Amino acid sequence: MAEPRIRVSSIDGKLAQEFAVPSHVEEVKAKMSAFATHHAAAGRSVVLITSGGTKVPLESRTVRFLDNFSSGRRGAASAEYFIDSGYAVVFLHRHRSLYPYTRTFSTINMLDALQFRSGEEVSGSSGGVVVDQQVLPNVAKVLKRYQEVKDGGLLLPIEFSTLSEYLHLLKAAAQALGTIGPKAMFYLAAAVSDFYIPASEMPEHKIQSSNGPLQLEHGPQDTVAAG
Amino acid sequence: MAEPRIRVSSIDGKLAQEFAVPSHVEEVKAKMSAFATHHAAAGRSVVLITSGGTKVPLESRTVRFLDNFSSGRRGAASAEYFIDSGYAVVFLHRHRSLYPYTRTFSTINMLDALQFRSGEEVSGSSGGVVVDQQVLPNVAKVLKRYQEVKDGGLLLPIEFSTLSEYLHLLKAAAQALGTIGPKAMFYLAAAVSDFYIPASEMPEHKIQSSNGPLQLEHGPQDTVAAG
Repeated sequence: MAEPRIRVSSIDGKLAQEFAVPSHVEEVKAKMSAFATHHAAAGRSVVLITSGGTKVPLESRTVRFLDNFSSGRRGAASAEYFIDSGYAVVFLHRHRSLYPYTRTFSTINMLDALQFRSGEEVSGSSGGVVVDQQVLPNVAKVLKRYQEVKDGGLLLPIEFSTLSEYLHLLKAAAQALGTIGPKAMFYLAAAVSDFYIPASEMPEHKIQSSNGPLQLEHGPQDTVAAG
Repeated sequence: MAEPRIRVSSIDGKLAQEFAVPSHVEEVKAKMSAFATHHAAAGRSVVLITSGGTKVPLESRTVRFLDNFSSGRRGAASAEYFIDSGYAVVFLHRHRSLYPYTRTFSTINMLDALQFRSGEEVSGSSGGVVVDQQVLPNVAKVLKRYQEVKDGGLLLPIEFSTLSEYLHLLKAAAQALGTIGPKAMFYLAAAVSDFYIPASEMPEHKIQSSNGPLQLEHGPQDTVAAG
């Protein structure tokens, strides 16, 4: 088995050659395009925010991967501020990274914040379940704002996990938002890997430690974005 | 800067030499010991379950790390089954991996499952907030069981993130549960890295891609656990 090499990212228009195209990229692009056109027509600016870290699989049937640490806190908080300032937001974020509004409760186990409605404990599994506002003092305020934003269609969430997905979706976003010209803004807060394994050199199965040294290299090319 | 080497794990009693000791390990060990003694005295068996993947930092002020994919679903579900079978459970799991009971709702955005109590939308930020049981049909049943388990003190959650933490906490658990002899069981469901960088060779700062090739190796030693 050839040892995989990890290269420094270098985007030169041959994106699809080095990074597998996610199957849903056209569908997502159409969504972003409709979102941008709709809000621009309503006189609203649209910002694309990237958030969270990218991961780089070491095998195509992935067991192990290289990851960039990022909770996504900055991107998620920024999304709220942009919306408060009148923007519509495309939120391109790492799967399971912090999310606008929900981020407020990220350290709480949800079941610790719930209780049976007073007097209904006995009824057990059919009773009403309420939020304990001692545990989540801001929940009503946050929920109200979340629902307003949702009803207003002001937030379009798109998820990525791998560097490949991130790059293809970012390219699609650039094309989708290009149509609204000066009403578009890009705010890149994601922690993006500057190492990757070209699709052509990716081993299919798990690298066995018994096969000897694991060698991950990158060539001396330019870096697209530092993590 | 010396390039880091990633080695295959080999535990030969010199754990602290190659893996930094987490500062809270003695405190956690005392907790596990008290938990084991208490339940054994009540005639209950105690199982230690490991769950989720370990991560291996590539720098000591970590920006990037190698990770092992694991949602923690098997470990979290197993914890529930063990408790239902009369065991007390020490749940040694990766930070933010799936958690017993809560795992049922892991794909739901919590704010999508909440609503203002009927007729109280207008009162806004001071109203009662309830769970929409259309969105979470099992919440009452799960909450009831979660509270019983919590009140019974049947689940002791301990978190790890890095391979180092995992190994030291597992060793501490072995010592803590050793005192109850045949009443102890180990159920190792975590996805554990078989590569690591020895503490002595860990670079302090982020590896710069401009420094040339990133070389990660491991020696031809035996594997402790395959991910």
